[in-house]
Amino acid sequence: MREVYIHDIGSAVGGTTEYNDAATLGQSEADWQRLTDKIGIRSRSIAGPGQYTSDLARAATEALISRTSVHRDAIGTLVVCTQTPDHLIPGVASRLHGQLSLPQDCFVLDINQGCTGFVLGTQVMVNWLRASGGNGILVNADTYSKLIRRDDLTTRALFGDAAAATLYSTRPGGLRIVDSHSFADGTGYNAFIAHGSALRSDTGAPSGICMDGPGIFNFALRRVPESISAALDPHGLQLQQLRMVLFHQANSYMVGQLARKLKLTPEQVPQNCENLGNTVSASIPLLLMEQMPMLQPGDFVLAVGFGVGLSWGTVLLEYSEEGSLPPRGA
Amino acid sequence: MREVYIHDIGSAVGGTTEYNDAATLGQSEADWQRLTDKIGIRSRSIAGPGQYTSDLARAATEALISRTSVHRDAIGTLVVCTQTPDHLIPGVASRLHGQLSLPQDCFVLDINQGCTGFVLGTQVMVNWLRASGGNGILVNADTYSKLIRRDDLTTRALFGDAAAATLYSTRPGGLRIVDSHSFADGTGYNAFIAHGSALRSDTGAPSGICMDGPGIFNFALRRVPESISAALDPHGLQLQQLRMVLFHQANSYMVGQLARKLKLTPEQVPQNCENLGNTVSASIPLLLMEQMPMLQPGDFVLAVGFGVGLSWGTVLLEYSEEGSLPPRGA
Repeated sequence: MREVYIHDIGSAVGGTTEYNDAATLGQSEADWQRLTDKIGIRSRSIAGPGQYTSDLARAATEALISRTSVHRDAIGTLVVCTQTPDHLIPGVASRLHGQLSLPQDCFVLDINQGCTGFVLGTQVMVNWLRASGGNGILVNADTYSKLIRRDDLTTRALFGDAAAATLYSTRPGGLRIVDSHSFADGTGYNAFIAHGSALRSDTGAPSGICMDGPGIFNFALRRVPESISAALDPHGLQLQQLRMVLFHQANSYMVGQLARKLKLTPEQVPQNCENLGNTVSASIPLLLMEQMPMLQPGDFVLAVGFGVGLSWGTVLLEYSEEGSLPPRGA
Repeated sequence: MREVYIHDIGSAVGGTTEYNDAATLGQSEADWQRLTDKIGIRSRSIAGPGQYTSDLARAATEALISRTSVHRDAIGTLVVCTQTPDHLIPGVASRLHGQLSLPQDCFVLDINQGCTGFVLGTQVMVNWLRASGGNGILVNADTYSKLIRRDDLTTRALFGDAAAATLYSTRPGGLRIVDSHSFADGTGYNAFIAHGSALRSDTGAPSGICMDGPGIFNFALRRVPESISAALDPHGLQLQQLRMVLFHQANSYMVGQLARKLKLTPEQVPQNCENLGNTVSASIPLLLMEQMPMLQPGDFVLAVGFGVGLSWGTVLLEYSEEGSLPPRGA
């Protein structure tokens, strides 16, 4: 079985900064102070009126290509994960494929997933590259701001618009993908839903994202620790052996509660939502991009996604020196 | 490497029949006679006003489960391919997962693809099952009628709403998936596009599906024969050795021109669009479902998708008696 590695990550954020304060969003400054202290999100990058998911996806992918040595002709897989596409028909991956002049024998796929989208996208990518070899790019990109009602300040204060483009390869280097697991509970479909966002219009609910905050919180606090056990147990790893747990950056309160429940040290749980907000499926690769320079060979990193669907899952990674690891596995 | 097989297919169609005639669509009966003689589509099943993609997807999947012996708890993978979801957030697969009470350790994924969606969905499914084993369901479901302008009669006369649910398994039986290839050319993004269907709204074009019919026709007539060579050559197969070529049922004229160019016999090219229309990514599995009872052990079948994206590809299948084939491959 071929091993698959994450080599590098490129990023892009929305062109407008929106602050969680009274001057921007109304209400009292004291209220915003209390809220931002709790959620840990002080500002977010928002896509401008003429800026769409494919624009962020393209910027992140071009940033990735420019910082790596991979040639466009060597990209055999392009997967875009988004829930806020430019069009329903075609998908964003098709647009990006044309804009970047990628080869025609490229596996080009759009997947729809929220905050577990880095996990599921990694699973699709790893399965493809294990079968075919070569290089692939997973783009996680969303512009949730366009689906959030402007008067829904609780939700609006959480989400930022961004994209991350991650380069995977069967060539050794960077982070080896050790294992991945994903889970689903579609009975929680309505816990996070964007009414009126596509073709169903029979609910009478006002259009826009509708979030059952406490429901999502309780779900995550229950399911995420279970999934971390399921990720570590098969490899005989303990939580203390993880250099980092990269939680989906829902908000600082959510991440802090998970870290406390799991008795993780603050050093094990880096965060970056203060000026990005919750960037949906881009949040884990954006955080990983920041943390990669800090990693040492042999470090284990666990990425943990959870959210809309409901859906949750993990990716276990091991940092290797460039080209240093022999292939493992059967 | 594990082999993966297609065991069975379930289906569902929109609840309303729409005829391509003057009484239904206006214009003259003579015009409709000429058009329907050419495209070979006399009626189509259309989703009713309260019927959405997830409704068709659920009906097809329940039909599949009721005609096969697979238990819901044994479904480890659920992939839904659609371009007309109920909501952008969450995806249809999440809704279906909850409605069917599938297990939580199920890989649940929505993919966005048009008329090549059976090929790409099969590739995702095969890669997953080769890695994990077990059973998976791919649902191809769309309600394009909701995105077609009612006055765009040329496009409206082509498309029907339907769903197909296909059961894949690493347990031998049915059709063995021999190989699959997919291709993309995103520079043709605008050749088939649904303006105003999601978040981009900067084109000024009227909302709804906009199809460059001649562009798609010329693309298919050029790329599809190339892809068939790419499918057969590695296996030393000739076109005459194929029991059937299951073309995406764009319309009879398109399929007929491809058959003629490739010098296929009429017996090799079954069609079923007369009363279904072009059902997007469901069209190949709907046709395969009809044809499976006619197959003999050892028959090779080539499924060929092409369309929106632009995107095209093939799946090569070999019919095996239930449980008769030993696993092959490396």
